[in-house]
Amino acid sequence: MASAEEKNVRGASVLSSLINTLSSKSIMITDVHPEIDSGRFAVKRTVGEFFFVSSKVFKDGHDVLKVSLLWKRQDDADWHVVPMTHTNPGLDVYAGHFLLESNTYYSYTVEAWVDVWESWRDEVQKKLAVGQEVTLELLEGGMLIEEALNQAKHSDSSDKESLSEVLEKFRRGLYVEQCNILLAEDVKSLMGRWTNRSSLCRYDRILELFVDRAGASYAAWYEMFPRSQGIKPEQSATFTDCENRLPEIHALGFDVIYLVPVHPIGRTHRKGPNNTLVAGSHDPGSPYAIGAIEGGHTAIHPDLGTLDDFRHFVHTAHLYGMEVALDFAIQCSPDHPWVKESPQWFQFRPDGTIKYAENPPKKYQDIVNVDFYNSDALSLWFELLSIIYFWVAQGVKIFRVDNPHTKPLPFWEWMIREVRRQHPEVIFLSEAFTRPPMMKTLAKIGFSQSYTYFTWRNFKGDLIEYLTELTQTDVAEYMRPNFFPNTPDILPEFLQKGGRPAFMIRFILAATLSPVYGIYNGFELCENEGVPHKEEYLNSEKYTYKVWDWERPGNIKSLITAVNRVRRENAALRELKNLRFHTVHDENVLFYSKITVDYSNMILVAVTLDPFDTHECMIEIPLDYMGLSTHENYLVKDLLSGEKHLWNGVQHRVHLDPYTNPALILHVLPWPQVDFESPSW
Amino acid sequence: MASAEEKNVRGASVLSSLINTLSSKSIMITDVHPEIDSGRFAVKRTVGEFFFVSSKVFKDGHDVLKVSLLWKRQDDADWHVVPMTHTNPGLDVYAGHFLLESNTYYSYTVEAWVDVWESWRDEVQKKLAVGQEVTLELLEGGMLIEEALNQAKHSDSSDKESLSEVLEKFRRGLYVEQCNILLAEDVKSLMGRWTNRSSLCRYDRILELFVDRAGASYAAWYEMFPRSQGIKPEQSATFTDCENRLPEIHALGFDVIYLVPVHPIGRTHRKGPNNTLVAGSHDPGSPYAIGAIEGGHTAIHPDLGTLDDFRHFVHTAHLYGMEVALDFAIQCSPDHPWVKESPQWFQFRPDGTIKYAENPPKKYQDIVNVDFYNSDALSLWFELLSIIYFWVAQGVKIFRVDNPHTKPLPFWEWMIREVRRQHPEVIFLSEAFTRPPMMKTLAKIGFSQSYTYFTWRNFKGDLIEYLTELTQTDVAEYMRPNFFPNTPDILPEFLQKGGRPAFMIRFILAATLSPVYGIYNGFELCENEGVPHKEEYLNSEKYTYKVWDWERPGNIKSLITAVNRVRRENAALRELKNLRFHTVHDENVLFYSKITVDYSNMILVAVTLDPFDTHECMIEIPLDYMGLSTHENYLVKDLLSGEKHLWNGVQHRVHLDPYTNPALILHVLPWPQVDFESPSW
Repeated sequence: MASAEEKNVRGASVLSSLINTLSSKSIMITDVHPEIDSGRFAVKRTVGEFFFVSSKVFKDGHDVLKVSLLWKRQDDADWHVVPMTHTNPGLDVYAGHFLLESNTYYSYTVEAWVDVWESWRDEVQKKLAVGQEVTLELLEGGMLIEEALNQAKHSDSSDKESLSEVLEKFRRGLYVEQCNILLAEDVKSLMGRWTNRSSLCRYDRILELFVDRAGASYAAWYEMFPRSQGIKPEQSATFTDCENRLPEIHALGFDVIYLVPVHPIGRTHRKGPNNTLVAGSHDPGSPYAIGAIEGGHTAIHPDLGTLDDFRHFVHTAHLYGMEVALDFAIQCSPDHPWVKESPQWFQFRPDGTIKYAENPPKKYQDIVNVDFYNSDALSLWFELLSIIYFWVAQGVKIFRVDNPHTKPLPFWEWMIREVRRQHPEVIFLSEAFTRPPMMKTLAKIGFSQSYTYFTWRNFKGDLIEYLTELTQTDVAEYMRPNFFPNTPDILPEFLQKGGRPAFMIRFILAATLSPVYGIYNGFELCENEGVPHKEEYLNSEKYTYKVWDWERPGNIKSLITAVNRVRRENAALRELKNLRFHTVHDENVLFYSKITVDYSNMILVAVTLDPFDTHECMIEIPLDYMGLSTHENYLVKDLLSGEKHLWNGVQHRVHLDPYTNPALILHVLPWPQVDFESPSW
Repeated sequence: MASAEEKNVRGASVLSSLINTLSSKSIMITDVHPEIDSGRFAVKRTVGEFFFVSSKVFKDGHDVLKVSLLWKRQDDADWHVVPMTHTNPGLDVYAGHFLLESNTYYSYTVEAWVDVWESWRDEVQKKLAVGQEVTLELLEGGMLIEEALNQAKHSDSSDKESLSEVLEKFRRGLYVEQCNILLAEDVKSLMGRWTNRSSLCRYDRILELFVDRAGASYAAWYEMFPRSQGIKPEQSATFTDCENRLPEIHALGFDVIYLVPVHPIGRTHRKGPNNTLVAGSHDPGSPYAIGAIEGGHTAIHPDLGTLDDFRHFVHTAHLYGMEVALDFAIQCSPDHPWVKESPQWFQFRPDGTIKYAENPPKKYQDIVNVDFYNSDALSLWFELLSIIYFWVAQGVKIFRVDNPHTKPLPFWEWMIREVRRQHPEVIFLSEAFTRPPMMKTLAKIGFSQSYTYFTWRNFKGDLIEYLTELTQTDVAEYMRPNFFPNTPDILPEFLQKGGRPAFMIRFILAATLSPVYGIYNGFELCENEGVPHKEEYLNSEKYTYKVWDWERPGNIKSLITAVNRVRRENAALRELKNLRFHTVHDENVLFYSKITVDYSNMILVAVTLDPFDTHECMIEIPLDYMGLSTHENYLVKDLLSGEKHLWNGVQHRVHLDPYTNPALILHVLPWPQVDFESPSW
């Protein structure tokens, strides 16, 4: 047993080391922003952006603090160091930024230390300013130079000569000279490199950032049902038919063609038209019942063509500057090869069957699910990962993931990180129409983009509240909305009831509120025949063959083309966080702006939310926010109609007709900046 | 070197264990509230309160989750477990609470698991409700019972007999019977104890809570300058004089008597009247220049008496039900014994002097500061701790800490925790009139109460904004405001200019907005002679002897007595977070409520903020918020004037005169609840 004395000694040494530890924490570094859930998840950004970091940094007393932002890419050996500036001294806020140049994971954190020299300098300057005498302070300053010189001595830096020169001159100088020597700016920068940093403190956590390629944050998606792209009734289209549509879709201005599953479809319990339980012998079944004798998640449905045909389709899309996205739906028909090859991945029931998918009382008899935590989970997780690698090898870099919220979060977090390690360019879109915490968590754990509640947000208050959350809160740090006004599963009531005007309104909202949006084919034709009292398509192509007339009268293709062109030509519309809502004196009109940080591109959008009636109302131009003065003239051009106005002041009357002009997309330019030579004016 | 195969095997086993780890994280437990800075700091509560914890808990799929709140006191060996209820299923919110009975540190966290049995039961019930057949499900239910029985078998619990009985009956039963047996409520509770919890997940962090004694969150403080409590001019009062004032201060309704430093005062560089540099031989000096030949921080100034006299004073205060608080000012006069005994605690300058305190260009020549990180810091930190222990032994359990923001945060965090380990009843008040991040951090690291910006918040918008931050945000989880309208250093402009009405207004605000408040002696006399153009007292007693006439005409002692009585009699005024502001149609009138959670005590306060003129205006009684219906009669009694009104509806006119009735403190009771037998009506 330890004697009392020994215990005391031991206690003392513990406390002594505690004091050392604590003293390395004497500077508080807090409120580092952005940071998600205490650093548990990575922040999202896009290549080409500046990354801005702020922190509150403070310490007892009046010392001058120096604060640095440290960052490195996944493969960098050392930290890059960016000085942070004291942007809000009243709240102890420091800020710094750097350019994001690589599509990869980054780390970042914050460091701070007392700048002994600047603290000394600051004090002396304050005293001199009120005529106080600083003889002792000068002596102390000389000692600091001496100390720095001792540091520098052991280096190769030429600073040692400079410091030594300063010290010489200081020692020879008289009072006023000494003041001038020590307070000189070049001595300040010299000392900035050599004063001791024994007070160096680092923020508790190293934070993570994932930087996507540009396509993750700006794109127009076109969702395509491949087997419905042909012209022969009652039979499946092929990838050749799909390819024939590429010129048109490219002309409409889309960037991504997303295909619902293209794999063989099971025959057991195949669904008939309108989701009926019994399929006729000619019914094609739901493409979400994946897997049959012909193969599973890496096979192509023979009716669509071969893997070579698929690759040809992808290649042709690339020639048009478009990408192909695939559906990643981890569900199997009972005929999926896995059931025979890896039965251990499934849970069998007492009668020897595999339980089909259910959400009681709903039943999905054509689908069985794998068990992610089965005893052989390892091989299952790797198999799923390998599916992604397989399609990446075929040129697919975007995956729309079906119902990720019904699969374990740890699986996604692991899988997405694994994929990004080799293929940081891969984009995952989370289709999780579920409760907010799960929807947000899927975004946090790595999904690049997310389906949202936009699909059901139709009216002014709801839209403002939801878009404010998506663009002006921490949600914008990790979740990129991909606004879909319709999907194969969802034909919202607003589109069913509002007809063509509703399609125009919802399209303009999706494409101008969010830099990433998509439509599901048929939207451009204003297809709105629903199952009565349900938000579902009647005779959905999910269960049948379908032939569309892509030039059907009443289509809104010219509007789509125009809006996609406007998006391409206006940088402000390619950003998310710059959305702001402004005053319009009508409860059915939404008025908002998107403005680039340098004011070089200023877009105002006024959209009616009423698909039935015209609205004439006053909008209030946010002059201050746009950097315009009250009496300045500015030119306004409606990018949809081409009409121009010379405006002045805040209040302006607008007229919106849901049938002819449901929205104004106004490009604003201060009069002196208008270049009438430019074709856009 | 490892072969490729070995590497694969090793890789596989790493991944396998990764999957196990990840699967133990398949339930997301997030947004635990309250939590301060990712659990870095302890939440504050008071003995006798319920502690409410909420969390968002969710998982992929449709399983039924069980969520528990775990808590233990510092000395408890095991967790106490409280089931959390699903209070907001749409947002996956679970909540639970428990009673705080001990003045100590608590820990808490959240656990969740899939309730396999309830998930099964839920599914079967949904299917039966729509007439689906459940034969297979019953077989699976039987298997779950069997599994539970296997668990229970190895226990002493009588549940094993019950489970085995259920299983017997189930095996003998037919379909309908089997349904009834397995869905029975008692089987549900039985299975709640025995189904496997292999999915158990625990929140990432264990959070901390410090529960103070009641005095930390409710008290009226009276700040006393001991040497000014006597009747003989030009000489120091004694503790006996101080003791003579106790009956009066007790009658005014105060709970805490806080004394500015009572220690020997240095002679070197002693300050003269009005902070002049040269003291006359009879000038007493600032009590903040602590330490002289007679002793330091554990000594009593001989002019005030002996340690025994001090103890007698403390004892007498206790007899009146009052506590004594001391000033803990870690600063020394150049004559402090430490300078000779432990010179290593100080930083010496090139001329051999110790640097006096400065905040350039301000100089505090009578004060020198210790260096908290000197080479012998260990002994300094312990010495400072021992000072607290010394005074605790004399019966002092409250310390007002002078300028804690000029000493290292790690020191305070360590010291306060050390003290609480032995003396959890000790209360520390942080006097940090500094920038918000430091003020808040001092509260976070442990200070029980904090001085605030209330001292300078005079007008409606400022007061609403600041009080909303203090009471309705996370700040209320860790910072307890102690509202002082004046201090020896601060005579705010509002009091200087507004005279007696201003004193009444500021008093009522302090005492009704915050459950903890204090005044510095002289306030009750409306002393408001300031140094011109400064917020300082002219002829401050900090530097001179002073004799007060405690019955001076124009004093507001009757108002103080009345308001302190009202605070004592109305539980609603003893809470902080129940403050809400309500509509009053006058920009110089503040209208707010404090209501207990059970509506048993409802107080409305209307205060004019204008010390010059009368205001007559409409207040809007928040009927909904008070649980009153629109046409209900309610009795309103002004607790200051005693006037009663029978009111009905929202709008009521009030008349406020800063000279006679600057405020209404209305006690509201629905008519049916009025007990006219009670003396209060």
